[in-house]
Amino acid sequence: MTKVHTPLILVNFKTYSEATGKKAVKLAQTAEKVSLETEVCIGVAPQFVDIAPICHAVSVPVFAQHIDPIAPVSFTGHILPESIREAGAVGTLINHSERQLTLADIDATIKRARETDLLSVVCANNTSISAAAAVLKPNMIAVEPPELIGTRIPVSKAKPEVVSGTVEIVKRINPDVVILCGAGITTREDVAAALRLGTEGVLVASGIVKAKDPYKVLLEFAESITKA
Amino acid sequence: MTKVHTPLILVNFKTYSEATGKKAVKLAQTAEKVSLETEVCIGVAPQFVDIAPICHAVSVPVFAQHIDPIAPVSFTGHILPESIREAGAVGTLINHSERQLTLADIDATIKRARETDLLSVVCANNTSISAAAAVLKPNMIAVEPPELIGTRIPVSKAKPEVVSGTVEIVKRINPDVVILCGAGITTREDVAAALRLGTEGVLVASGIVKAKDPYKVLLEFAESITKA
Amino acid sequence: MTKVHTPLILVNFKTYSEATGKKAVKLAQTAEKVSLETEVCIGVAPQFVDIAPICHAVSVPVFAQHIDPIAPVSFTGHILPESIREAGAVGTLINHSERQLTLADIDATIKRARETDLLSVVCANNTSISAAAAVLKPNMIAVEPPELIGTRIPVSKAKPEVVSGTVEIVKRINPDVVILCGAGITTREDVAAALRLGTEGVLVASGIVKAKDPYKVLLEFAESITKA
Amino acid sequence: MTKVHTPLILVNFKTYSEATGKKAVKLAQTAEKVSLETEVCIGVAPQFVDIAPICHAVSVPVFAQHIDPIAPVSFTGHILPESIREAGAVGTLINHSERQLTLADIDATIKRARETDLLSVVCANNTSISAAAAVLKPNMIAVEPPELIGTRIPVSKAKPEVVSGTVEIVKRINPDVVILCGAGITTREDVAAALRLGTEGVLVASGIVKAKDPYKVLLEFAESITKA
Repeated sequence: MTKVHTPLILVNFKTYSEATGKKAVKLAQTAEKVSLETEVCIGVAPQFVDIAPICHAVSVPVFAQHIDPIAPVSFTGHILPESIREAGAVGTLINHSERQLTLADIDATIKRARETDLLSVVCANNTSISAAAAVLKPNMIAVEPPELIGTRIPVSKAKPEVVSGTVEIVKRINPDVVILCGAGITTREDVAAALRLGTEGVLVASGIVKAKDPYKVLLEFAESITKA
Repeated sequence: MTKVHTPLILVNFKTYSEATGKKAVKLAQTAEKVSLETEVCIGVAPQFVDIAPICHAVSVPVFAQHIDPIAPVSFTGHILPESIREAGAVGTLINHSERQLTLADIDATIKRARETDLLSVVCANNTSISAAAAVLKPNMIAVEPPELIGTRIPVSKAKPEVVSGTVEIVKRINPDVVILCGAGITTREDVAAALRLGTEGVLVASGIVKAKDPYKVLLEFAESITKA
Repeated sequence: MTKVHTPLILVNFKTYSEATGKKAVKLAQTAEKVSLETEVCIGVAPQFVDIAPICHAVSVPVFAQHIDPIAPVSFTGHILPESIREAGAVGTLINHSERQLTLADIDATIKRARETDLLSVVCANNTSISAAAAVLKPNMIAVEPPELIGTRIPVSKAKPEVVSGTVEIVKRINPDVVILCGAGITTREDVAAALRLGTEGVLVASGIVKAKDPYKVLLEFAESITKA
Repeated sequence: MTKVHTPLILVNFKTYSEATGKKAVKLAQTAEKVSLETEVCIGVAPQFVDIAPICHAVSVPVFAQHIDPIAPVSFTGHILPESIREAGAVGTLINHSERQLTLADIDATIKRARETDLLSVVCANNTSISAAAAVLKPNMIAVEPPELIGTRIPVSKAKPEVVSGTVEIVKRINPDVVILCGAGITTREDVAAALRLGTEGVLVASGIVKAKDPYKVLLEFAESITKA
């Protein structure tokens, strides 16, 4: 199993065409290249169908974008945690603002992730939701104000108090949770600011996937960590 | 592209552990074996993560269990039709009773499937829903009374009038739609009855996936077609 | 029971503050006044909590904005058709674009409405969805392209072919269905155009609820019918 | 505004026919009678359409079964908190296991309830979900293992450790939250056990609504509190 260590740069491929199919594999290889060069941990969260080819091609940690809190019985069109694990993924996003779950399902999904040896990364919109999620003992929480997702305005700049406040409250509730900072991360300064505010990594999507030169931007992100 | 012809046996792998990961590839190979031996068209609908490995390993037509009616933009945890197509699938289930969609989304999903060159198989609970779905011009409709799914009671036996009535109404609305018969299909007689009632194939899940010897049962199903 | 006849002006109160509580009752009284003066049938679709007081205060036909396809058993926070009927409503909107249902639920809801003696008004986004809905035999279909809802651009002007095409196809499938025209209706000309294109009424919301003088606008709407 | 005090017996009318329309008003009057006789606070949570008539008829505190976290803008078929408040309700259930919400919506709904002066009663399935909900600062939490709802097996008997464990953890996170015990409450002993385990009331449905003599059972419940 590919080891995950912090600080972590986690790249959400979403359903962008630049990160689908062969292009998804290529982007994962770019992530691997930067990770090997800088020794910074870079994870990728591709679409479900691309998980197996990517796990075959690279050795960076792969995350699903979602799993369902189900057992291997009769469900159609659902994401069985075991299928994700067997394909080679090491973790999963849970409750992304574009794929929200009920509170009961977040609880059940974190438990299923633990049972199937998948790292759980719960996405949360704000401080109070992050704190509630922390009670459920996921491995990581990614704070992402949804109104900043896809913008070039990082939460660390627009709402630094959301990040530092979240770190403080979450750590008080559950000191073991790793906190990532998401939404609007596009420059090396954004990554540095996120770490300075107490998080242990970033969740990034369009900032990398839509970049003209993803290698260059990822390298900058990684260097802002190694040179911090 | 793998050609699909009728009569069609379409096997829904659901999220059964017997049809996940390596076992999914093996089951697809069994389907291929029977298809080659009998020249009956056998399609498989595995979980998303297993689509790529299965398309790599076999030449039977592969269907997704669901797609979302989305364009390649910012969605997390969704199923982009293009990703399914690029992975090698030739079609998709839509609106399975375990993954139901709004009417507007069924309409949009059929259109997206057409745009991405995927065959659309809309699942419907009863005659009136099948007729409504036929208006939206999918390639196929699978009639599956949800109360019979997972039982060993075939709709062709329990409710033959649902099957023949559906065939009649759907063909009147849209003579181009291929009609499959689902729910409770477990024996060669069930397959024969389905064809006799005017359908052009079956949608089957536990009857194959949970069989002690899937090869034997699939062979019986295929022979009930070739010897009809 | 308050009789519904066509042409029908049906006013959706939505959750606008101008149409909540006492203001809802007042707006329903305005509708009644115009209806009595012009003999045009004007229905109102208030929020659930306002149905009983409105039915008590006025004699215009009252519609719910939604019902659930449930029987009187164990559900919390759902809308039991019988409760709506007992409160005095004569019908219900179904599948408004702001409250969409699965295809199976639309089918079941229309059947429950029939059982509880409620008129069913299914909302549909476009021609193909209207045609699919017509198969399910509701009493009325309201065609409302969602992109025009809340604008001042009537579908009868922006997309007249959607309206006339819908009328043609729906009537071919089910000549008994009454077709209403919705989205962007704000002037008497919009109402006249809707009728000219073959519909038998309008579904209107902000055009009345947000009007400076709802009485004046409703009167204009009604007169565009009586003077046609 | 009708004052709510603890210990509280809160009766969820659900969509039972025994608690719809005129029968709902009658059941609320029964609750009022017992409350006046025993001075125990008894709240009722009827269907939306019955809120206004009940608030008109009785003086016991009335709760909605659900509200949506929306502002008074363009929504159809939704529950505007302001409409509930204006109709006379003093609070609302949130996230009942039969009407579950996303974590973000629970957070937003609690905030909207506070803004509109409605007491928030969040329903939770188990200890960890109750603890997560407590972080969001509702007024009350009702612990209801969904597998016991509608049974005659009280959680206080089947899983006393769920109740006492929940009380302990929730009070540590947020000592101001009132904890109710739900699911399977049918006898005076169940009520007494719930209070003994540290809760401040019960959330009950079929135990009262489906009782042959709701007055008698409610009186027993209330006396198990006054005589404790």
